[in-house]
Amino acid sequence: MIKKLAIIGVGLIGGSLARALREQNAVKEVVGCGRGKANLERAVELGVIDSYTHDAGEAVKDADMIFLAVPLGAMAATFEAIKPHLAEDAVITDGGSVKGCLVKDAEAVFGTVPSNFIPGHPIAGTEHNGVEASFPELYQDRRVILTPLATTNPDALQRVIDMWQLCGAKVTTMAVEHHDEVLAATSHLPHMLAFSLVDSLAQMKENDEIFRYAAGGFRDFTRIASSNPVMWRDICLANQDALGDMLHRFADELTDLANTLKEGDGDHLLEIFERAKAARDRYIDKV
Amino acid sequence: MIKKLAIIGVGLIGGSLARALREQNAVKEVVGCGRGKANLERAVELGVIDSYTHDAGEAVKDADMIFLAVPLGAMAATFEAIKPHLAEDAVITDGGSVKGCLVKDAEAVFGTVPSNFIPGHPIAGTEHNGVEASFPELYQDRRVILTPLATTNPDALQRVIDMWQLCGAKVTTMAVEHHDEVLAATSHLPHMLAFSLVDSLAQMKENDEIFRYAAGGFRDFTRIASSNPVMWRDICLANQDALGDMLHRFADELTDLANTLKEGDGDHLLEIFERAKAARDRYIDKV
Repeated sequence: MIKKLAIIGVGLIGGSLARALREQNAVKEVVGCGRGKANLERAVELGVIDSYTHDAGEAVKDADMIFLAVPLGAMAATFEAIKPHLAEDAVITDGGSVKGCLVKDAEAVFGTVPSNFIPGHPIAGTEHNGVEASFPELYQDRRVILTPLATTNPDALQRVIDMWQLCGAKVTTMAVEHHDEVLAATSHLPHMLAFSLVDSLAQMKENDEIFRYAAGGFRDFTRIASSNPVMWRDICLANQDALGDMLHRFADELTDLANTLKEGDGDHLLEIFERAKAARDRYIDKV
Repeated sequence: MIKKLAIIGVGLIGGSLARALREQNAVKEVVGCGRGKANLERAVELGVIDSYTHDAGEAVKDADMIFLAVPLGAMAATFEAIKPHLAEDAVITDGGSVKGCLVKDAEAVFGTVPSNFIPGHPIAGTEHNGVEASFPELYQDRRVILTPLATTNPDALQRVIDMWQLCGAKVTTMAVEHHDEVLAATSHLPHMLAFSLVDSLAQMKENDEIFRYAAGGFRDFTRIASSNPVMWRDICLANQDALGDMLHRFADELTDLANTLKEGDGDHLLEIFERAKAARDRYIDKV
């Protein structure tokens, strides 16, 4: 049982965590912290949180579990704000999409990464934002990746694992760097491709006409290009190294593909397409 | 009124055209031609066609409208087969995804492109194949691009326009080369990107794990990588030049993007992402 849960950033991710824990009667008190008053008042009305403050230091006082759901660019300032007010046994975890930068931020603020800080990443979300969009089933059967360090307190890790499992999530752990590579491949690179494809088409002459003839496949392929640009700028910058490597590698593959096409090597094209279809169909069968 | 419609290739595309015209009482007789006996018999049972043959030459005898819906790689052989049997006033059109190669095939077989041949491309489809998947509303409010040549008979063009409009389609005409560029941008390039992303992830070590952590965005982004590999090999080879250019250009953009990321130029990233989101949201509002 969590006695006092502090949610810093009460949106889809933080709000859904609070709702899921409440449904399980796994938390006694939830205090929310954020900048927008309207959103926080709505969170109280909806019963997601019991009370709110705009001061993260205030929010974490006496909290035994702290969940950071602020944008990646605001994590360092949040660490600064909560540092003087942390209870001794307080466990801190977060929902950020990149983990390496967060570990660096924690190091910069605390000197060494606190043994009770467990970097985490729930692989869940919808296209909607704000506490209004939160719901208790968001994490049901979704994966949550935790990236503990060598210095992590095993009890703190276990408390975070328990918390997510109560929400219905499948929890796994992996190394920080490995997380950032896997996410660069499956999430950050696809977003970059979608953004950059749509942008390059938008800059072709007669781009209106081009979009007019786009069919359903294009609509699906580019859906992620309608994501929040500021959030994605932050994610890309935070995962600069792993994502930069993936981008360079993929650009080289496209150049190879263009040459394959120029040579008219249909067998090689078919090989690529068949391998891709098999992998994609296998993956879809599993989810 | 079409007296005798010959559908060469009775699948989703050809079958749906026949069904739509029948619903409008715009055709008297429909003869189907294909290789698979079971599919053709099913087409008769479903009332999509009146009769069938495996011989394209036989099918087009006395037909006043001929629709070619065979794979791009089979178009040249189909032209050869029908050439000696065409009625004088027969209009020929098709549903192929690339138009330049088709004009070349027609030139090779007929010497010059017949003035009654109108290359066409209905921008419609589903992920299902075969006559079983066909339905009369497939072309309702969808775009059909026709690419007439300078030597095209205007009466023949009008008959094809009328036919598609009866099916509820919005018909436009454009130059052959322009069609192939537009489709390279909006359809062929996205398919290449999706196939090649999934293939390159599938070849990373621990690829099983990588796919395991892929979220909903990845699922949408890669849906088109589950398309038919043989069909897409043919399309890519048929649109070699325009698609090759697009691939090279896009590979260069990705290299630029990787450099932007390396320099940590967040303003430039944000600019790209915002332009893309605006273009995508605008386009989605329209469709």
